[in-house]
Amino acid sequence: MIAELISVGTEILLGNIVNTNANYLARKCAELGISNYYQVSVGDNEERLASVIKTALSRADLLILTGGLGPTKDDLTKEVTAKVLNKKLIEHSHTKERIIEYFTRKKGLEITENNWKQALIIEGSTVVDNHNGTAPGLIVKTEEGKIIILLPGPPNELQPMFDMDIFPYLNKLQPGVLYSEMIKICGIGESKAETMIQDLIDGQTNPTIAPYAKTGEVHLRITASASTMVEGKNLVKPVVEELEKRFSTHIYTNKEEENLEDVVVNLLVKHNLTISTAESCTGGLLTGRLVNVPGASAVLGEGFITYSNEAKEKYLNVSHETLETYGAVSRETAAEMARGACNNLKNKTSIAVTGLAGPGGGSEEKPVGTVYIACMVNGHVKVEKYQFKGNRQKIRELTVINGLNLLRTSIIEEFELNSN
Amino acid sequence: MIAELISVGTEILLGNIVNTNANYLARKCAELGISNYYQVSVGDNEERLASVIKTALSRADLLILTGGLGPTKDDLTKEVTAKVLNKKLIEHSHTKERIIEYFTRKKGLEITENNWKQALIIEGSTVVDNHNGTAPGLIVKTEEGKIIILLPGPPNELQPMFDMDIFPYLNKLQPGVLYSEMIKICGIGESKAETMIQDLIDGQTNPTIAPYAKTGEVHLRITASASTMVEGKNLVKPVVEELEKRFSTHIYTNKEEENLEDVVVNLLVKHNLTISTAESCTGGLLTGRLVNVPGASAVLGEGFITYSNEAKEKYLNVSHETLETYGAVSRETAAEMARGACNNLKNKTSIAVTGLAGPGGGSEEKPVGTVYIACMVNGHVKVEKYQFKGNRQKIRELTVINGLNLLRTSIIEEFELNSN
Repeated sequence: MIAELISVGTEILLGNIVNTNANYLARKCAELGISNYYQVSVGDNEERLASVIKTALSRADLLILTGGLGPTKDDLTKEVTAKVLNKKLIEHSHTKERIIEYFTRKKGLEITENNWKQALIIEGSTVVDNHNGTAPGLIVKTEEGKIIILLPGPPNELQPMFDMDIFPYLNKLQPGVLYSEMIKICGIGESKAETMIQDLIDGQTNPTIAPYAKTGEVHLRITASASTMVEGKNLVKPVVEELEKRFSTHIYTNKEEENLEDVVVNLLVKHNLTISTAESCTGGLLTGRLVNVPGASAVLGEGFITYSNEAKEKYLNVSHETLETYGAVSRETAAEMARGACNNLKNKTSIAVTGLAGPGGGSEEKPVGTVYIACMVNGHVKVEKYQFKGNRQKIRELTVINGLNLLRTSIIEEFELNSN
Repeated sequence: MIAELISVGTEILLGNIVNTNANYLARKCAELGISNYYQVSVGDNEERLASVIKTALSRADLLILTGGLGPTKDDLTKEVTAKVLNKKLIEHSHTKERIIEYFTRKKGLEITENNWKQALIIEGSTVVDNHNGTAPGLIVKTEEGKIIILLPGPPNELQPMFDMDIFPYLNKLQPGVLYSEMIKICGIGESKAETMIQDLIDGQTNPTIAPYAKTGEVHLRITASASTMVEGKNLVKPVVEELEKRFSTHIYTNKEEENLEDVVVNLLVKHNLTISTAESCTGGLLTGRLVNVPGASAVLGEGFITYSNEAKEKYLNVSHETLETYGAVSRETAAEMARGACNNLKNKTSIAVTGLAGPGGGSEEKPVGTVYIACMVNGHVKVEKYQFKGNRQKIRELTVINGLNLLRTSIIEEFELNSN
């Protein structure tokens, strides 16, 4: 099955919004094993939209259109699709009721006349309820057996609708099933990670391994096409085991929805630890990332943002001598910051960061990008030196990711490996 | 002039990357007054890329292609464009020299045989030097007078090249000139801001006002089409003055490249102030944003991330009684946090944040999204209550933006309005 993704909306053509829908749907099609040859963005213009739909029907089996299902006159996707297919728009009473319910729930919002336009559907289409808005999704089959799916444009309506209803629908149409697992890696660069599995990727047919690079991380999706889920699982298993052998402790999770800060907070909770932070060059970003996790308040004691040497002395007990002798960006200062943040309290862990994010301040000996990260876990201090590349923003992001990862590996070393 | 944007790369079709290039170029075309009717993404496939170029030539005057200029066999954009136009690829000695220079600068990188592919250009094309990579841009004119521009895919190569060379080139082709100014607003919601200028937008012909919504901010671009820059400036001036009257102190800058944290840091430097921060629900994000500004270290004393009541008492001197009586999320606690962070030091300002980012912890009286922000400037404490909507992430982002804005307006009130 070959899909074409069509994004409708003049706001895309004017550059007012980034087209993240096309990216989302492309990823989902890849997961489903559906090929995607073209993505087209077109404005809210009847003639041009009609020509885009006709062209897509001539070269794809599945058209996914997003946007243009709203209540205003500008919203034309349903109307133009119906016209191209020579079908009528008819009122859908179930959808009309849902629109009334929606507005009853959202007290203060009034139904205007043009909202009823959203209760119209293309005759013969399958209606997909929208649990986060008023425009339903539509699945239309053409006489030639092609499928056109119309979805609302706002990502918070589109994504749940796709995940809950469209993904399973398309999955059923594919011969067999697709089974996939995810492995998330930190602490190894993208190109090194790819080199480490080049032989697996070169030789792969089924399952396939698809690497996705994120700042400081690499995610690997392993996907098998099979006739049943159980068969898929069995196909994926040896590949996952091989990857686990190769990346070992660099793997921080195999759960799709879990990210690095979730893992760190879960480890802290599991081992009944609290944490204090001491940040210099990241200026609060690392703690801000931990606080991303709902419920982080249970493990986070306090954080210190100590940019100046005075603050490092006053709040973290870094000795004046250490700062004088080794400088603020040094292994010794990082270690004392971590000790100071921990304050020798029991069940307390800490992380401390000091580095040069640039653009100014670098030297031959300590160039911009030099960062020391220290963790104190179970009374032991561990310091690592990093040499990051990139601009100020990138250096700070990489510091946050690698800091969280050092914390993760330190907790595991102290409380999980030692106790075995 | 009508443009079509063509993004080349299988990584877009697989959903591995978000197509930010199309967004960037669409915005630039809008600024230039060039209409954009279609955006197409296509993979590294000779036949399909050729068909996309042919279709675009039949319906647009200007084609901008991005991606596929790299050194590998997969990179086909130059080759396919030449074939469609029936032109040859020839070696360009200036580009060849630049490639050698590039690799000499990047010690450790070796020139491989396929790098010489990047020194080939389409005959008769204008070469645009790439100052951030090895693939030059190309401008090709067709026999029918249409223009095809080929640009490298990596945004850090594409954007500087476009801004420095392509934008002025296209601007010259347009009849007359485009002159535009920017106004950035904070503290007024998007829909309210739009309502406040609906009459101006409805009645506009030249100049035009284009609003762009960002989280917690609205940016207005005022663009005039004129025969000279001076005429453009004169056309834009009364509109900018009218907007300044309507939005007054909500405008935080009229400089394109300046953002809210830049403005705040500049104000602190200007008035010889230093700042301490005290964050609860934002957990370091606000300070992290300030530290975005290179040189922020000169004004930032220290930051406290005080999630727990104990930390608020210990490090910020919030009284136990206040926390007991009014709760951690209250006007009184925010004010005491700001006082505590300031520590009664001269020339010291502070900002304190306490709120409920959710998802848990809300009540009838204090629902999720309730945030108090306090600023202490020049010895005076100002506290504002906010009721934000959205998920945890959104509430925290809105808190950061509105906190920075409160700091900005407080410093202006204390040091600029009073002294007049």
